[in-house]
Amino acid sequence: MAGSSGESVLSRVVRIIESFGSEAPALRVSEIARRADLHIATASRLVEELVGYGWLQRDDDRRVRIGVRMWELASRASPTLSLREAAMPFMEDLHAVVGHHVQLGVRESDEVLFVERLSAPGAVINLTRIAGRLSLHVSSSGIVLLAHAPSSVQEKVLAGPLRAYTAHTVVDPKQLRALLADVRKSGVAVCRGFVDPRATGVAVPLRGPDNTVVAALSTIVPNDDNARMHIPALQAAARGVSRAMGVQDLCGRTQYFSH
Amino acid sequence: MAGSSGESVLSRVVRIIESFGSEAPALRVSEIARRADLHIATASRLVEELVGYGWLQRDDDRRVRIGVRMWELASRASPTLSLREAAMPFMEDLHAVVGHHVQLGVRESDEVLFVERLSAPGAVINLTRIAGRLSLHVSSSGIVLLAHAPSSVQEKVLAGPLRAYTAHTVVDPKQLRALLADVRKSGVAVCRGFVDPRATGVAVPLRGPDNTVVAALSTIVPNDDNARMHIPALQAAARGVSRAMGVQDLCGRTQYFSH
Repeated sequence: MAGSSGESVLSRVVRIIESFGSEAPALRVSEIARRADLHIATASRLVEELVGYGWLQRDDDRRVRIGVRMWELASRASPTLSLREAAMPFMEDLHAVVGHHVQLGVRESDEVLFVERLSAPGAVINLTRIAGRLSLHVSSSGIVLLAHAPSSVQEKVLAGPLRAYTAHTVVDPKQLRALLADVRKSGVAVCRGFVDPRATGVAVPLRGPDNTVVAALSTIVPNDDNARMHIPALQAAARGVSRAMGVQDLCGRTQYFSH
Repeated sequence: MAGSSGESVLSRVVRIIESFGSEAPALRVSEIARRADLHIATASRLVEELVGYGWLQRDDDRRVRIGVRMWELASRASPTLSLREAAMPFMEDLHAVVGHHVQLGVRESDEVLFVERLSAPGAVINLTRIAGRLSLHVSSSGIVLLAHAPSSVQEKVLAGPLRAYTAHTVVDPKQLRALLADVRKSGVAVCRGFVDPRATGVAVPLRGPDNTVVAALSTIVPNDDNARMHIPALQAAARGVSRAMGVQDLCGRTQYFSH
């Protein structure tokens, strides 16, 4: 790692920012140095500069956090902001009707990234978080996004390894391939106990302006709920979001919604 | 601006990221160079590197945007995430009852930064956006946050300049000081036409674990609405959020809610 090139400074800054996570929102400089594989003096100097720009901030106890300014810069021009803003009113209505977790996920490489989540206190267990990720094959959202991903992505995921979160997670490539074909045909993924034995995920695709699948809209319900009952509300909400994003010819897509 | 020091590379990266905004979510490299005051070759090289880390991404038409990865890094460990997660269920209920914009703002220096907003289609005009800012003296949220800010912040704002958004914005320091005292006493700010002549903002303070005011919870209603009618629901929601964040002794604060 050279000390003076622009590349290496930026790569060190990226490693510093990446050392924070939902499980580690506040870190001491020594921890940052260890996680980012940097000399403590280098980490200390860069952290100090990032604090100066508001990209990091210090707690009262001198631990360091992601700064509000960094969140603001990333959020005000976020590529998912228009999707999120279009989706939110429909997600709220859905949440009010369904009464369980409602979430919006996009595909990032071979994972689903959850960009929004509405939860009620006391709802069933849900391992996802806003800005959290799961492998594509695990959750109903991931299955929907994988079913509509380019074949190169599908083949990479099918080639494994496929981690089993529970005894119900589909980790056999042949079964997973059949599941993806079924999800493309039926327009919905119903995944009982894939992520946690107590919960069922129900997800539908959400189409963007060029009619490609840009996101998955999902709800997580307890297993004793009649999960399929929520499919029409999910599909109606997904169509509403697509319309709000300017999709015109959704009528031609009713084949995806025929159960 | 030296070409090889770590400081200057980071400052250039910060200027590149700051050149994006809600009014400019996608920029050509030449525009980035101009906005960030960089030579186009420097901007081009740094943009390329940022694209490599996923902090920026390219559109189909070669324009550049903030990358989903940067949003993810800033959001998963965001200092406002726990506030937002505690507030969201209460904001949803409030939104369902009030039927107008409901928003959550925090003070960043002499501005209010809106970290969450729920809106219904067809609601009254609202100039704020998620990750958008307004001067503290302009909106009901800002007035609440200013009323509870350190006196150094209050004096700085009162020293002006105070921009008038409408004929109703309070720009006279003496009147503003009296308004702040009233807001501290009554526990609510009702600002009719301060930001836009058609809308009234109603905001209440939201207290964190150490009982200091950490945010403002507000609703924006049309002027022909009975704005004060929404105060009890707002105050109840703010107390709910505080409890969800672990505030124990809210009973001692009822003096703030006595109308």
